[in-house]
Parts: sequence; C-alpha cells; structure tokens
Amino acid sequence: MIKKEEYLKLHKKIQPYIHQTPVLKSRLINELAETEIFFKCENFQRSGAFKMRGAMAAILNLTKNERKKGVITHSSGNFAQAVSLAAKLLEIPAYIVMPSSAPRVKKEAVKTYGGIIYECEPNLKAREKAAEEIQQKTGAIFLHPSNQLDVIYGQGTAAIELLEEKPNLKTIITPVGGGGLLAGTALAANYFGKKCKILGAEPFEVDDAYRSLKSGKIETNPSINTIADGLKTRLGDKNFPIIQEFVSEIIRVEEQEIIDAMKLIWERMKIVIEASSAVALAAILREKKQFKGKRIGLIISGGNVDLGNLPF
Amino acid sequence: MIKKEEYLKLHKKIQPYIHQTPVLKSRLINELAETEIFFKCENFQRSGAFKMRGAMAAILNLTKNERKKGVITHSSGNFAQAVSLAAKLLEIPAYIVMPSSAPRVKKEAVKTYGGIIYECEPNLKAREKAAEEIQQKTGAIFLHPSNQLDVIYGQGTAAIELLEEKPNLKTIITPVGGGGLLAGTALAANYFGKKCKILGAEPFEVDDAYRSLKSGKIETNPSINTIADGLKTRLGDKNFPIIQEFVSEIIRVEEQEIIDAMKLIWERMKIVIEASSAVALAAILREKKQFKGKRIGLIISGGNVDLGNLPF
Repeated sequence: MIKKEEYLKLHKKIQPYIHQTPVLKSRLINELAETEIFFKCENFQRSGAFKMRGAMAAILNLTKNERKKGVITHSSGNFAQAVSLAAKLLEIPAYIVMPSSAPRVKKEAVKTYGGIIYECEPNLKAREKAAEEIQQKTGAIFLHPSNQLDVIYGQGTAAIELLEEKPNLKTIITPVGGGGLLAGTALAANYFGKKCKILGAEPFEVDDAYRSLKSGKIETNPSINTIADGLKTRLGDKNFPIIQEFVSEIIRVEEQEIIDAMKLIWERMKIVIEASSAVALAAILREKKQFKGKRIGLIISGGNVDLGNLPF
Repeated sequence: MIKKEEYLKLHKKIQPYIHQTPVLKSRLINELAETEIFFKCENFQRSGAFKMRGAMAAILNLTKNERKKGVITHSSGNFAQAVSLAAKLLEIPAYIVMPSSAPRVKKEAVKTYGGIIYECEPNLKAREKAAEEIQQKTGAIFLHPSNQLDVIYGQGTAAIELLEEKPNLKTIITPVGGGGLLAGTALAANYFGKKCKILGAEPFEVDDAYRSLKSGKIETNPSINTIADGLKTRLGDKNFPIIQEFVSEIIRVEEQEIIDAMKLIWERMKIVIEASSAVALAAILREKKQFKGKRIGLIISGGNVDLGNLPF
C-alpha cells in the first residue's frame, strides 16, 4: 500500500495535468439538509470527471518506454475520456474499446480528446478479447477504470485537496460504482483527515457494494436498472479490501431521490452534475439525522451528461 | 451621473449582501472562438442573477423611513426574485405584481425568497394599476428593473469586480434587454477599464436596442418571439442615453445560435446559465473575426431556468 509521503508525491506529480477543482457550498441545501456540506466539484475537472486523476496517475507511473506504446482501456464512460485526454497530454496513443451500442455522444467525446476507438460486441467477453488483441498488436498497457492501485490512489487526490482546504471534516461521502473513488478517498482520508469517517452512496437498484460489505465477498448486480449510469459496475479485488478496512457504511437511495437531488443541485447551485454524483447528496437527505450539524465533504464525481436525455 | 468615488462607495455598500462571483474560463471555448473569454458568472449570484446587485443598491439608497414601508415592483422574472431576497435581508416587505399567466415556477421562486405576490391581468395597464394601488395602500417605494439610476449603477458593479480581477480587458460584452446591465457595465468600464470597448448582444427577434442605437430614439419590439426571455423588454429613458454615449455596437444573433451557445456552456463549462446569457457568447462566435486574439469579458447574467422546459 502507498505510504503517506508517497501519496503527497503522487499528488504533486499529477498536479501539472489536472485542475485543483473548487469547493462550493449552498446556503439553501445546507438549510434543507440541516448540516454543512462542502462540495468538491470534480465536474469541473479536466475531461469532466475525477477519472482524470486516476488516469493521469497510472500513465505517469509507467516508464518512458512503456508509455511510448500507448495505453488501452475498455470503458464507455468517463474513464475512456480521461485516458484519452491524459494520453494526449503526454503525446502517446490511447486505444479505447467501446461496445458498438455505446451512445454516439460518448464516442464523440472520446474522439474529441483524441482517443482511438475500437468497437466490439456489447458484452464483457468481446470487450476483453478486443482489448487483448490490441494489446498484442501494439504492446499498449492496459489500464483498469477502478481496480488498479495507481488509479485508485489517483482518485483519492480529490480528497487530499478537499482536506487541505477543509481540514476539520467529520465525514466524506462519495458515490460508489467500481469502487476506485471510494477506496482512494478512504485511503486519503485515513492519512490526511482527522478521524474523518468515510461513507459510500449507491442506488438500491445496483447495491452490490452494500451487499459486498455485508457478506464479506464481492457481490454482483443481477440487474442494472438505474439512472446513475456511472455506478453500474461492481467492486474489484484491489479496492474491496481497502473499502472493507476504511469505509464505515454504504447508504442506498431510491431512483426518485437521485433525480430530486440532481435537480436540487442544478437549480440551486447552477452547476451541471451527473446523476451518479447526485447519489451522494440523496444519501445525506435520506439519512438526515445521522448527518445533522456535521461538517461533511461530498465529492461531485462528474458532469458529463447527455443534455438531450435528462430525467426532469 | 454617479462619480467614480461614489461608484466605489456604492459597491462597498452592497458587498455584504452579494456574492463576489467567480470569473471562469474554458480552454475549449477559447479554442473554438479563437480568443480569450473571461466569464463573470452572475448565475452564481444570490437569487441566481445580477439583478440582486441593482435591487440591493436601490433599497440601500432609501432612507430608513422609506425602507420601512417596503418596496414594490412588477416583474415576472429575475428582478422579482432579487427584490424579494434583498428586502428579506433588510427585513422589509417586498410586494411583487405578477401577471396571472406567469409560470408557476417563477411564482414559487418569488415566494421562496419571501416576496408577497399580487396577481393581475397579463397586460401592462393592469400591472401598472395594481402597482399603483399597492403603493397607495402601503406607501411602498416602486423599483424599476432596468430604468432607474441606482438600479443601473448596481448592475454595473459586476463589471467593477471583473475589471479588478482582469484589468486589461479590451472588450466587455453583455446581453441587452431592458438595458440596465448594459448601461451599468458601460459606466463602470468607462471609470475602471483601460480603453475597454463595451458591446451589447441581443436576439434578432427582439432587436429593439440595435434599432434604437441606429434611429437615436427608443424603439419597441413588434413581437417578442425569442427563447431569451430576459431580453424581451425595451430600453428606457434613463439607460438609453448612457448606452448611446458609451456602447460601441449591438450584435444580433439567431435563435439557433443562442441555443447552440447555451448548450456549449452547459456541456463544456458544466454551469447552468439562462438562454439570455448565452446570447453574448453567441455574438462572439458569430462575429469571430472582430474578437480574434482579444481579451474579452462576458457577463453571464443569470442561471434561473425551468429545467422542465429546456431547448435541447
């Protein structure tokens, strides 16, 4: 596991390539929630999501020779955009395997950031096979969106910045999908927080992380019928032990609660956030009692939405 | 007309009640526009729009005795919300005359900020009559959204902050509806800018300001068929002379250009802005040549939108 000083070094290493995103508050949301929430706005991060941190950390950790051959990932979401942009900044190729069914808007975004798209059948097997083939052909290094240690550490740097700015947070809450952001945040808070509790938030519809913490093994989702499309994936063997050690609880929320929280943030804070990010505020509003009067950090994970397809 | 030192004093007077809103940039929009744009984000202002500045300035300029009786305005938009909030902060009543046809969401917003709504028939005569009746009954002071000097001066304080942060702007562009923001910005830039050119932007559909500058008298709009619902009103005798003296040009834009610019800002900057605010970016993108390579300030006027009724 990364040591405290190494963590600060890693943060310094990626800083020239990322934004130090702002920490915002909303008087009205604080009144509604009867608490004080500090929103770390990774929707303003480069590529539109915290994923830029992990992608950058992983690529910078490669040797120069490794980097030359490029990087590869299979993702249809924010990690694909982040890897494309991170690779572009370092002038190396990024190969992105995407299911042929991925929305055009996501493919366009990857292309904007310079990623080279390989389409495959929309199933895990085809994805893995395509990635393997490209790897063999190009020698590119595979990067996992959430289950790779340097990616996880990179994601945690948002919490480092948040705790530098607001050192006395009692709790930090993040959405949990693949588990990279939650695990990274938990590690960072363990090093840089003052007895800061870490919570995850996820939709009832994909409550694999909740069930995994209960059962002690990585659970899967029988269906993935949620509006929070960044949270459909399951935990991995690298991040699950960290989550088991450092995360107190996973709070689950209903779909309508997610939509309401998303609308509240758009209307009141005038910022564009993804449904996945709204899950964390929905959790605070649902469990008002346990958050009452605390100072809470909340990581807004991203702001990449399809404006033609909003839930309100 | 206000003097330079008085203007700074006015700014200081309203500062405890308003936000110093951030100035944002977008790498991608700069690339597209081939220039450098600094967005003064009044969508993050209290009440969600720059109108808070003018409302606050006007109310603080009243004597204590005048204030006690309250203030009154007829508006169905951002000025109603601003007056309601400004009055609430000073613990005086705000009477808002609104046409019975005003959208529920706007009435709700006024109520949220504590305004007392009086409904009237949806025409100017009924509005003025209702306002007069309340004035006689309560002794409240009438505030005009755009054609009153202290309101105009208040609106200009956004440009003072922008020029303090970015002193070398060559141009500032704002949307123009009733003319308060444009006139205030022009005055402020005349005092605090360094040969800073002031431009207005408005939809072709309601190009009364453009025509007024050409003809030398205040023109009206035969129809008001624009998505930029904050820009449907016409100039007034207080702001028109200021605009005539200090504003170089009004640029007109098509409805589709407004929608495209609005989408661009939402998608790329991850902020919620009104269609009226997008008009200014649309003007820069339409007249790319004249803005090329300049440092431009752009005032994002507000972010109060009906999320259930978006144009994309």
